[in-house]
Amino acid sequence: MAQVKNKQVILNDYVTGFPKESDMNIVDSTITLKIPEGSNDLVLLKNLYLSCDPYMRGLMNKPQGTASPLAYTPQSPIAGCGVSKVLESGHKDYKEGDLVWGFTRWEEYSLIPAAQILFKIEHTDVPLSYYTGILGMPGMTAYAGFFEVGSPKKGENVFVSAASGAVGQLVGQFAKLHGCYVVGSAGTKEKVDLLKNKFGYDEAFNYKQEPDLDAALKRYFPEGIDIYYENVGGKTLDAVLLNMKLNGRIPVCGMISQYNLTQHEGVTNLAHLVYKRIRMQGFVVGDFYHLYAKFLEYVLPYIREGKVVYVEDIAEGLEKGPAALVGLFSGQNVGKQVLVVAHE
Amino acid sequence: MAQVKNKQVILNDYVTGFPKESDMNIVDSTITLKIPEGSNDLVLLKNLYLSCDPYMRGLMNKPQGTASPLAYTPQSPIAGCGVSKVLESGHKDYKEGDLVWGFTRWEEYSLIPAAQILFKIEHTDVPLSYYTGILGMPGMTAYAGFFEVGSPKKGENVFVSAASGAVGQLVGQFAKLHGCYVVGSAGTKEKVDLLKNKFGYDEAFNYKQEPDLDAALKRYFPEGIDIYYENVGGKTLDAVLLNMKLNGRIPVCGMISQYNLTQHEGVTNLAHLVYKRIRMQGFVVGDFYHLYAKFLEYVLPYIREGKVVYVEDIAEGLEKGPAALVGLFSGQNVGKQVLVVAHE
Ligand SMILES: NC(=O)c1ccc[n+]([C@@H]2O[C@H](COP(=O)([O-])OP(=O)(O)OC[C@H]3O[C@@H](n4cnc5c(N)ncnc54)[C@H](OP(=O)(O)O)[C@@H]3O)[C@@H](O)[C@H]2O)c1
Ligand SMILES: NC(=O)c1ccc[n+]([C@@H]2O[C@H](COP(=O)([O-])OP(=O)(O)OC[C@H]3O[C@@H](n4cnc5c(N)ncnc54)[C@H](OP(=O)(O)O)[C@@H]3O)[C@@H](O)[C@H]2O)c1
Repeated sequence: MAQVKNKQVILNDYVTGFPKESDMNIVDSTITLKIPEGSNDLVLLKNLYLSCDPYMRGLMNKPQGTASPLAYTPQSPIAGCGVSKVLESGHKDYKEGDLVWGFTRWEEYSLIPAAQILFKIEHTDVPLSYYTGILGMPGMTAYAGFFEVGSPKKGENVFVSAASGAVGQLVGQFAKLHGCYVVGSAGTKEKVDLLKNKFGYDEAFNYKQEPDLDAALKRYFPEGIDIYYENVGGKTLDAVLLNMKLNGRIPVCGMISQYNLTQHEGVTNLAHLVYKRIRMQGFVVGDFYHLYAKFLEYVLPYIREGKVVYVEDIAEGLEKGPAALVGLFSGQNVGKQVLVVAHE
Repeated sequence: MAQVKNKQVILNDYVTGFPKESDMNIVDSTITLKIPEGSNDLVLLKNLYLSCDPYMRGLMNKPQGTASPLAYTPQSPIAGCGVSKVLESGHKDYKEGDLVWGFTRWEEYSLIPAAQILFKIEHTDVPLSYYTGILGMPGMTAYAGFFEVGSPKKGENVFVSAASGAVGQLVGQFAKLHGCYVVGSAGTKEKVDLLKNKFGYDEAFNYKQEPDLDAALKRYFPEGIDIYYENVGGKTLDAVLLNMKLNGRIPVCGMISQYNLTQHEGVTNLAHLVYKRIRMQGFVVGDFYHLYAKFLEYVLPYIREGKVVYVEDIAEGLEKGPAALVGLFSGQNVGKQVLVVAHE
């Protein structure tokens, strides 16, 4: 059986603190492009687009207690969501040529259990890379977090942090479509411009240039915030708590500002939860994939009509993977960070 | 018209930091025991039992921004919940001799708008003072916070802080009646004994004697906590977040450990909200009084059968009010702190 070269991005060792490009390495491995005899659960994939996501940082930690089943092993390829083409399938649900998205490894070809595939891709009139973003995990995250966890009502005031990112750019657009007033924060002028001029945010500000986040929020929300879509945690959350309205909701999607800190920042304004009757609720997108078909029905028409747009930041080639991934934690990405392994 | 002496507890000045007995004064005022001519909204009350409640500390602050309508005014009597007898009523819903509970002032006699009365007392086969506690605001708080906000299921693991207090002693008993495993924390050995021997808590510990709250919680909840009934905030909350189970709930009733701090403690473990899908939800009892009849139907039979018990800490005489009230913040009270103004 012919072996072919299989480039991989491997994790050198467990990571503490901020991740660096040098925490990963590009290696040339080999793979036999054939499913082992008699395995009816394996699928052989050619990986096309890989998704760079903040949660991957957590998988680089040395596991403590009960480890995530996804946790990375040093000297093995890292893994994440991606769009792939089926080269051969031992599993009855998939066949050669199918396009799928789900969990795969950061390498050219992957032999994986079929259970790691999340969905078969049915709609190809949109960019395939969208299945790492707006039509993939981050899109579903924005949708579920905003609508299912946030319980938005028309006319409500919505604040989104990391607002220009993979998730945030969609939350803002969904909020506008729902008739809300929406303000976003991001870390550069370019991103702030995108928020206002491309994603339709009513207002946006650069949180790095606001010496007083509480004052900034009071400026944009003189009447307070109904929904805070929480992506960053820390100081931003603390300032938001001072500015929530009665019966406000905080869907807690993530806290990226804390992921690389050995000692997390303290949030001091939680007592506001009580008299403001705030619901702060963590969620994980994996619990909402039963809504994926409904989500596609909602979002695909908007994409086709140009009423929802999506900005991607495309890195070409597995070699660019480590930089693209660690770049998330200093805000290098403008929009959804995608890594192209192959275009088809 | 005859004037009578009307002893009052007045606030000397706005309070910062821990309240002291000397922040209040006992003064002899006078009152005419007659409703002014033509006022069809006023009720003249003889106050019997006054309730000492932690939220009263917040009303002693110098108001900032939009003040609570309840906020105290220096040199005026403080106010709170209490059980009173109607001496004369200008309002059609009340008549002389009625027993009521609701917002009144800390004085012997009060002329108040009828709207401040919360409920007429219909059941007098139980101690009248219970309407400051188990059958009053704290009882309703325990019930609403546990059942309505906490969404408990049989068999779940429940942790309660300030567990022997006015609210906590009931949460534990309701949790047991609901088929939960329940552990409480309190600040003295006497209270811990009460929790285990009187209120039926499965386990209890003295949080002041636990150098490592995380370790203590791991000892009592090896499988984690489903519901944390939050009364204290700060370090306890931070340790609890490390020990919550997936899909856990934190009804946020109060954060008494923070009420007297000028700078609140930082809570560092909020990132656990995300992957554990925790719902942390503040609530205010005032939003749940529409359930009061249902609550009485639930709790009165248990009281009559001795299946729910209630421990009160009774201070006799308005003079004892300041000490009783400030005592809440150092845990002087054992059970519900009641202040008796008159027995009938
Ligand atoms: N719960 C779930 O199931 C789920 C699923 C997907 C994502 N998430 C979470 O959602 C959040 C956004 O993810 P995403 O995929 O959309 O990422 P992203 O926004 O595309 O990329 C991360 C962005 O975070 C911002 N950032 C980095 N460090 C920061 C800091 N210290 N303070 C404030 N902002 C910082 C940067 O933008 P700036 O230039 O604006 O700083 C960066 O571009 C993350 O917290 C992620 O973990 C959760
Ligand atoms: N949301 C609402 O509508 C609502 C309504 C009523 C009450 N509440 C809240 O519910 C909580 C309990 O109220 P309660 O009426 O039942 O009071 P309580 O428990 O009868 O009295 C207060 C108790 O809090 C404990 N405590 C004081 N300082 C503390 C600290 N620094 N750290 C830990 N514990 C401390 C003391 O007990 P130890 O000896 O155990 O320390 C003290 O006995 C309070 O937070 C209150 O604000 C909220």
